Amino acid sequence: MSGNTFGKLFTVTTFGESHGPALGAIVDGCPPGLPLTEEDLQRDLDRRRPGTSRHTTQRREPDRVKILSGVFEGVTTGTSIGLLIENTDQRSKDYGNIKDQFRPAHADYSYHHKYGLRDYRGGGRSSARETAMRVAAGAIAKKYLASRGIAIRGYMSQLGPIAIDFQSWEAVDDNPFFCPDPARVPELEAYMDQLRRDQDSVGARITVVAEGVPPGLGEPVFDRLDAELAHGLMSINAVKGVEIGDGFASVSQRGSEHRDEMTPEGFLSNHAGGVLGGISSGQAIVAHLALKPTSSITTPGRSIDVHGNPVEVVTKGRHDPCVGIRATPIAEAMMALTLMDHLLRHRAQNAEVRVATPVLR
Amino acid sequence: MSGNTFGKLFTVTTFGESHGPALGAIVDGCPPGLPLTEEDLQRDLDRRRPGTSRHTTQRREPDRVKILSGVFEGVTTGTSIGLLIENTDQRSKDYGNIKDQFRPAHADYSYHHKYGLRDYRGGGRSSARETAMRVAAGAIAKKYLASRGIAIRGYMSQLGPIAIDFQSWEAVDDNPFFCPDPARVPELEAYMDQLRRDQDSVGARITVVAEGVPPGLGEPVFDRLDAELAHGLMSINAVKGVEIGDGFASVSQRGSEHRDEMTPEGFLSNHAGGVLGGISSGQAIVAHLALKPTSSITTPGRSIDVHGNPVEVVTKGRHDPCVGIRATPIAEAMMALTLMDHLLRHRAQNAEVRVATPVLR
Amino acid sequence: MSGNTFGKLFTVTTFGESHGPALGAIVDGCPPGLPLTEEDLQRDLDRRRPGTSRHTTQRREPDRVKILSGVFEGVTTGTSIGLLIENTDQRSKDYGNIKDQFRPAHADYSYHHKYGLRDYRGGGRSSARETAMRVAAGAIAKKYLASRGIAIRGYMSQLGPIAIDFQSWEAVDDNPFFCPDPARVPELEAYMDQLRRDQDSVGARITVVAEGVPPGLGEPVFDRLDAELAHGLMSINAVKGVEIGDGFASVSQRGSEHRDEMTPEGFLSNHAGGVLGGISSGQAIVAHLALKPTSSITTPGRSIDVHGNPVEVVTKGRHDPCVGIRATPIAEAMMALTLMDHLLRHRAQNAEVRVATPVLR
Amino acid sequence: MSGNTFGKLFTVTTFGESHGPALGAIVDGCPPGLPLTEEDLQRDLDRRRPGTSRHTTQRREPDRVKILSGVFEGVTTGTSIGLLIENTDQRSKDYGNIKDQFRPAHADYSYHHKYGLRDYRGGGRSSARETAMRVAAGAIAKKYLASRGIAIRGYMSQLGPIAIDFQSWEAVDDNPFFCPDPARVPELEAYMDQLRRDQDSVGARITVVAEGVPPGLGEPVFDRLDAELAHGLMSINAVKGVEIGDGFASVSQRGSEHRDEMTPEGFLSNHAGGVLGGISSGQAIVAHLALKPTSSITTPGRSIDVHGNPVEVVTKGRHDPCVGIRATPIAEAMMALTLMDHLLRHRAQNAEVRVATPVLR
Repeated sequence: MSGNTFGKLFTVTTFGESHGPALGAIVDGCPPGLPLTEEDLQRDLDRRRPGTSRHTTQRREPDRVKILSGVFEGVTTGTSIGLLIENTDQRSKDYGNIKDQFRPAHADYSYHHKYGLRDYRGGGRSSARETAMRVAAGAIAKKYLASRGIAIRGYMSQLGPIAIDFQSWEAVDDNPFFCPDPARVPELEAYMDQLRRDQDSVGARITVVAEGVPPGLGEPVFDRLDAELAHGLMSINAVKGVEIGDGFASVSQRGSEHRDEMTPEGFLSNHAGGVLGGISSGQAIVAHLALKPTSSITTPGRSIDVHGNPVEVVTKGRHDPCVGIRATPIAEAMMALTLMDHLLRHRAQNAEVRVATPVLR
Repeated sequence: MSGNTFGKLFTVTTFGESHGPALGAIVDGCPPGLPLTEEDLQRDLDRRRPGTSRHTTQRREPDRVKILSGVFEGVTTGTSIGLLIENTDQRSKDYGNIKDQFRPAHADYSYHHKYGLRDYRGGGRSSARETAMRVAAGAIAKKYLASRGIAIRGYMSQLGPIAIDFQSWEAVDDNPFFCPDPARVPELEAYMDQLRRDQDSVGARITVVAEGVPPGLGEPVFDRLDAELAHGLMSINAVKGVEIGDGFASVSQRGSEHRDEMTPEGFLSNHAGGVLGGISSGQAIVAHLALKPTSSITTPGRSIDVHGNPVEVVTKGRHDPCVGIRATPIAEAMMALTLMDHLLRHRAQNAEVRVATPVLR
Repeated sequence: MSGNTFGKLFTVTTFGESHGPALGAIVDGCPPGLPLTEEDLQRDLDRRRPGTSRHTTQRREPDRVKILSGVFEGVTTGTSIGLLIENTDQRSKDYGNIKDQFRPAHADYSYHHKYGLRDYRGGGRSSARETAMRVAAGAIAKKYLASRGIAIRGYMSQLGPIAIDFQSWEAVDDNPFFCPDPARVPELEAYMDQLRRDQDSVGARITVVAEGVPPGLGEPVFDRLDAELAHGLMSINAVKGVEIGDGFASVSQRGSEHRDEMTPEGFLSNHAGGVLGGISSGQAIVAHLALKPTSSITTPGRSIDVHGNPVEVVTKGRHDPCVGIRATPIAEAMMALTLMDHLLRHRAQNAEVRVATPVLR
Repeated sequence: MSGNTFGKLFTVTTFGESHGPALGAIVDGCPPGLPLTEEDLQRDLDRRRPGTSRHTTQRREPDRVKILSGVFEGVTTGTSIGLLIENTDQRSKDYGNIKDQFRPAHADYSYHHKYGLRDYRGGGRSSARETAMRVAAGAIAKKYLASRGIAIRGYMSQLGPIAIDFQSWEAVDDNPFFCPDPARVPELEAYMDQLRRDQDSVGARITVVAEGVPPGLGEPVFDRLDAELAHGLMSINAVKGVEIGDGFASVSQRGSEHRDEMTPEGFLSNHAGGVLGGISSGQAIVAHLALKPTSSITTPGRSIDVHGNPVEVVTKGRHDPCVGIRATPIAEAMMALTLMDHLLRHRAQNAEVRVATPVLR
């Protein structure tokens, strides 16, 4: 209830501060009998890990995850799964200034007013480091969903002003940007190099797609599948917008254009992004998210301190110039967790439903 | 858990089908001692009601709400508040075709696969008529929030291709579009008249603003205030996108531009839309939502029936050519419910927090 | 979250004050396709209804329940089910004294301190009248469970000092006490007649049994099936104790006596009451509950008023001299709701589990 | 939702198997600013620890708890608190027989049917070892409650056939039984020595008392304070019954005897156990629980194996002959967690309530 749990049947509860001794999570509700190893989780953690190219922070975070419970003889037992990542790169340093200042666009000011105090070391709980546990937990969901024919993948669809068209899934994992068009990678690299020289940061747009989702997932009214996806994706650090299907482009569309017509062979388009009336239609589920530019930049900014005095804040340390670059695995994880939860919720109520109508793609 | 409840401490649970005998809701968790009358709820219901101009459906829905419990001697008692609206305009008609056909872009196909059957009369539970109860419940939240200095208001910021700049709150209630610029109203009317002649529909963009929100609302990690707002707003029928603050425009912004600097007098900008690290900053909370064009248009569309055969669907009946026109009070309601819930959640944990730093606007 | 909802997947949310215009409930999460009529609910409501013998309150409460949504063409649709009972016997009377006094053993004093005010008419929300909605909602769960071979029945096992051995289910519905031994009914009648002459009240013990429950229901650790049953049963007005199986008799049992041994033909005893490690074993689930004597008696009692002054409270009006007499259908309802919820929860996670070992009874 | 979380606002989520690498918990919702050290948790863990007398299992479990997050500079920050206890006494041994057999009165059979497989090492998740994390989390709640004047203490009120009257709190911690009467300790020791010679086990009754609880905690209807206490206490391993106040003795009491009359100086009795209408009255909250005899005894018992064949089960290893002996700190922890949760829930809704009437004890 205090916000550190996601999901209702397949739940993920997390803890951990950026510079504390460890991050951890408890995954509850996983069906028994799923083959699961630490390596299954490590794969996605490595995709999110910083320091793999010159375009992300150079912090060294090996992020080795341990499974502490819920798996026995190689398969899940149905009991809660404890996960732990020990923090190894906690440089002991002087936090003097950060302690009393509110960095612009950071959570410092709002945490201070919420709690009356805050763990100022590296952003504490508000650090994007928290997302490592989302990725670890999401990998469990992904593995279960994959066993049911559901694949979840994401890519960068825009970096700052550079919009990128989707070309192929193969391309996505071949570059540090999750860019789906290999021809555009040099342009992205040049842009990032200039950005570093400008000592500035920029936003990004990520697209996540789930294929193989059966029709029927999602609940009517408040817990629509798209509403829960929006919840999960907007809860990622730095996300400022979420679209399902055509999203904001729908505003200027006409009904005759937007509606996805059906034939016995399938849907003729997918403006809806795979969700009708809040419930999956069997088409690919498509979501887009907007990430703001990194707040930590070395250009000084105006702010105040905890006493209300004006100060000039200069952020030091190692930061991603575009948080969006590493966001793709996180977005995939949140979509996987959302779909997993709804798969179980749907099954609880509707396990006995048998429908004759063919499923359209 | 089956999706008909919103909120965790201030909860709204609803029922009711478009053509059933009644709609209802239970509002739980309201603080005691709040003066409340049916008229307080009716005001917003009347703002949402169809048939008040030629640009919305001509269905007659008086939508008189009754308070059945939880209010005694004019004030809330702290116990659950039962609300009821009887459906009065249920024309008995022939549903023959609709019964076996899946209308494109409607929930027919997805409900059918979820439940194996559906109440096909007027869309049943998937009808936008369901939102009446959101508005009624939201009015309770609004009234409590107003007593704490929090005002929630919305307006139409785009109709189809026509973007509308904000001019004044006074203008908003003076026209059937919730248009904040009186000079643009004739243009909107002309557009809608042409749209009707084209037998088509169009989307819209709505903006909702909460002023007077104290800093500290929202929970870190998964239940960020912006994530919960996205959940609530995306759960409204026809919504395909949600933005907080600059939203998707943040993608191409630089960090030096996006970050809202602070001085002792206040924030210098509000790109963040009033939320930092998932927690309210004390600035105005600003959200935008995209609504798709109405799916029910009289232009025939291709589809299939429940046996998988191809059919041509022609929608008859009285429908809004732009569902966005009546969406403003609904969006306000969902923002009010979200803020109310987080006000109580924040108070539960942090009632004893006292902070010296001044609150910036 | 404010306590008016029971269950996690099959949820019941209720509203209504004793002397308000109506009682209502929303049942969410019911599987689609269950045949359901108002008569299905009315049957159990009639079993709970007062005034059917001289041993219960003579208030006339026809308690006709209406289904307002979620049922279409005679079967549930999977959407939320709205239920309503209008209060018809609200005598307009003088509440003068009750308004300012705290009746001993009633919720007056505790509600006053919780909320700062209270609906004093007939106990408001704290009245046992609230349990009508539990019975109505429980009847839906009972009907679904019955379709899966699960039968839930209860009986009075003790009235004041008179312990009653179980003889037959047939006997239970043949007398106003839910007494399972027809030979003991005259003794109970004589006891109650004397109690009325004494202007006093007495407690009772109720036993509820669920047969046909498959093994596997219940969650380990905190949401054990017995823990959730205890929650549900203890939430009934006037209940002060709950036992599963041998309950408090287990305290003085030895392990060699208590443990239920198994053979290929089945369990050799059922001291556990059908729950092992918090999970159903396939045996009959057996629970006992203790109800305190009715607090409303005509014998004057010492108390204070809202100003802290001493007063003598004399309860008038029509009250049950033993609330336990009508408690059996309520206890059945709470057990049905608990099992229904856990059936769905179990199915969500473990739908794919297939076990070779035979189920023992 | 899968049962490993307790509480709604102050939540505890746990993981860990008896013979796995570690036990852990995440405590969410703790108010910020509470001074907290590992030693605060260790104190109660040591009270629960086995092997401190010859009357409990001789397993060596140092149970050193680590706080991994949520505490900074000696006080809680309001973010989630990660707790970890590494398992150190995992003897590698031959589980051959246990693997395929269902031990009578254990969770083996029910887990097997629920999940289709189970971690058979030492009972896996169903082991009472799981309660260590309840005690650790409960210590946080206890510390916060203590800062508000609320004290929670328990004692053994019956061991097998030996009922024990309360004499003093001082006595409780001076013997390995949590016996509140020093004069009875030799009798308990003699009984236990004989029990060991008999190779048998026995049940116990524990009483828990909370003093200083303000009136107003608990929610009407389903989440009554006593219902939630029953939930929490019944969720402890081996508990088969829960009573509030006079509990089952209320069955044969008359209303004139049971009702607790009030004078301006206070209540004249406490038959209710501190709860009226599900809400705390300001009196001491009193609960009793019944624990069954330990199931693991060295006397052989009849059972079946996973193939349905009859087997004779002989339990080896180190087991408590009376699980009730170490249950007192666990019961205290569950009462502390329940009260803490309701303190926050009450505050969320009713923080602004001010009542003139004096609080009676």
